[in-house]
Amino acid sequence: MFPTRGYATQGPSSKLEPFTFERREPGPHDVLIDIAYCGICHSDIHQARDEWGGAIFPMVPGHEIVGRVARVGPQVHRFKVGDPAGVGCFVDSCRTCESCRAGEEQYCEDHTAFTYNCMEMDKRTPTYGGYSSQIVVDERYTFKIAPKLPLANVAPLLCAGITTYSPLRQFKVGPGQRIAVVGLGGLGHMGVKLAASMGAEVTVLSTSRSKEQDAHRLGAQHFVATNEPGALDALANRFHVVLDTVSASHDLNAYLNLLRLDGVLALVGVPPQPIPVQAFSLIMKRRILAGSLIGGIRQTQEMLDYCADKNITADVEVIPIQQVEAAYERTLKSDVRYRFVIDMKTL
Amino acid sequence: MFPTRGYATQGPSSKLEPFTFERREPGPHDVLIDIAYCGICHSDIHQARDEWGGAIFPMVPGHEIVGRVARVGPQVHRFKVGDPAGVGCFVDSCRTCESCRAGEEQYCEDHTAFTYNCMEMDKRTPTYGGYSSQIVVDERYTFKIAPKLPLANVAPLLCAGITTYSPLRQFKVGPGQRIAVVGLGGLGHMGVKLAASMGAEVTVLSTSRSKEQDAHRLGAQHFVATNEPGALDALANRFHVVLDTVSASHDLNAYLNLLRLDGVLALVGVPPQPIPVQAFSLIMKRRILAGSLIGGIRQTQEMLDYCADKNITADVEVIPIQQVEAAYERTLKSDVRYRFVIDMKTL
Repeated sequence: MFPTRGYATQGPSSKLEPFTFERREPGPHDVLIDIAYCGICHSDIHQARDEWGGAIFPMVPGHEIVGRVARVGPQVHRFKVGDPAGVGCFVDSCRTCESCRAGEEQYCEDHTAFTYNCMEMDKRTPTYGGYSSQIVVDERYTFKIAPKLPLANVAPLLCAGITTYSPLRQFKVGPGQRIAVVGLGGLGHMGVKLAASMGAEVTVLSTSRSKEQDAHRLGAQHFVATNEPGALDALANRFHVVLDTVSASHDLNAYLNLLRLDGVLALVGVPPQPIPVQAFSLIMKRRILAGSLIGGIRQTQEMLDYCADKNITADVEVIPIQQVEAAYERTLKSDVRYRFVIDMKTL
Repeated sequence: MFPTRGYATQGPSSKLEPFTFERREPGPHDVLIDIAYCGICHSDIHQARDEWGGAIFPMVPGHEIVGRVARVGPQVHRFKVGDPAGVGCFVDSCRTCESCRAGEEQYCEDHTAFTYNCMEMDKRTPTYGGYSSQIVVDERYTFKIAPKLPLANVAPLLCAGITTYSPLRQFKVGPGQRIAVVGLGGLGHMGVKLAASMGAEVTVLSTSRSKEQDAHRLGAQHFVATNEPGALDALANRFHVVLDTVSASHDLNAYLNLLRLDGVLALVGVPPQPIPVQAFSLIMKRRILAGSLIGGIRQTQEMLDYCADKNITADVEVIPIQQVEAAYERTLKSDVRYRFVIDMKTL
């Protein structure tokens, strides 16, 4: 074991503060990564404040992790010291169940070891996330990152990127399709970039007219301010896919009604309360309401390679770790364009 | 125009009573059918009582119509006098929109002329349904029925049959798949027969233990009484498809949680109130909540041919039309095994 510095919260009402903990020495298949940047995901806030229940404290959040390989175990083949590397939302899984064998480790039937607020595969050792100086992860759960991409901007791809990429691929988004992205935040801005890069016609649905210019810059053809009366009426039965990235409670039926025959509303935000759904909204156009959780290892690497190929990264605001609490407050107010990323050398 | 006898209700609080109205003379492409039997669908009750809003009175309900061809227009090619024939939930559509061209006329983008409580394509002439002596329908919206099948038992295929058949085909139900059917009523009993005939392993989830024997007789391998404590716990993450046929309000999340990775809950009943859905139930296993509305003309004929091939028809209780109000009350109490069918010669 070796000491690692990070920021942790001790309970749902505590603030994030400096915290020292231990990580395992790299085993034969492990890589030790010196963390350069870690993104701030909305789910970090939900979990740090125990809003989803079952939180494990002390908690070191962070699952949008990029850095450089500092050490490798003797059996590591895909990485060498100095390589850029990334870690996403989970660091291990059972590797043998049907989901793992299908490359969908995020849905492991035994136990997905999420990167923080979870247990390792021994189900006893807590996992600690990327608001820290280093992390040790099996190379199988570590991602290669193209050296040409700016590391800070790559960090959010590990959660916001794959979370939006995966349903866009699942529902075969491409040329000739009309896609709506609901909410232009960390997830939404990646959804716009990715859907546009796949050739779809993208409409941003946002409560904030102030994001209109950005929407176009990010690749959207259309922008609709959803709080303007009648704004959605003209869009009824229009979209093949609505990618709903909003984590706050909101009226899903208004968005379901924007779907054409066989259209899909893909839910990637997690509103805290149950969402009332009108059966008729689904039945009358054979619409689909689907959920999606990040992506598997294979698809996450595919997304990173795709983003390198298309020169897609996140729009970020880099902050020193001492500002993490202020960044949380601004994230809750959607006052970030479009993802905070912590510069870990400020630790 | 020629006079037609039927039963109609004059308003949401009125009873069904004898009613005489006019149907058009058969045009070049029309068939005139002497109605032999008409099934009683739960949606007849919802509409007769204006529970879905927008009801058109006087209303002659009924969209599970079978009988024999009595007359054909000069351009009719598929039917001759004396043929058994069926009419389902709609009698016309625009024929030119993308949905119609795809054979999904029930989702017509202009106007689906539903068999009753709707307007013809002129959008002025009310449609009157199958609780009547005769009906006149374009042959394109009329179904061929295999002479070997008992007509009374075929009637419910026109709605209950296609409503369950269509999502089972959409989600590729077959051997090796585990299917749950929620609710063993008119729709549910067809869902069990059809899913079993397709080779799936079928579990019936019902509030009534009294239906256990029937469930097995209809083809289900398993029966679970959902009101027994802990009954659903053992079924978590088990099913590929849950076919939910319940029209009353009920907890959908309990059933969503029975789905495996990528499992589908297909909603074919229409609970009157919005259904609260937990986002996590969908997201954590990439589950899908889907709606489905009857089926198109092509698929309905396919279903009828499939049922003839497999000797599948509905279990019915044949009643004289004078008992229709009593049958409504018994339907609301699920006191029918499994579909009331009106014998139209009692009119």
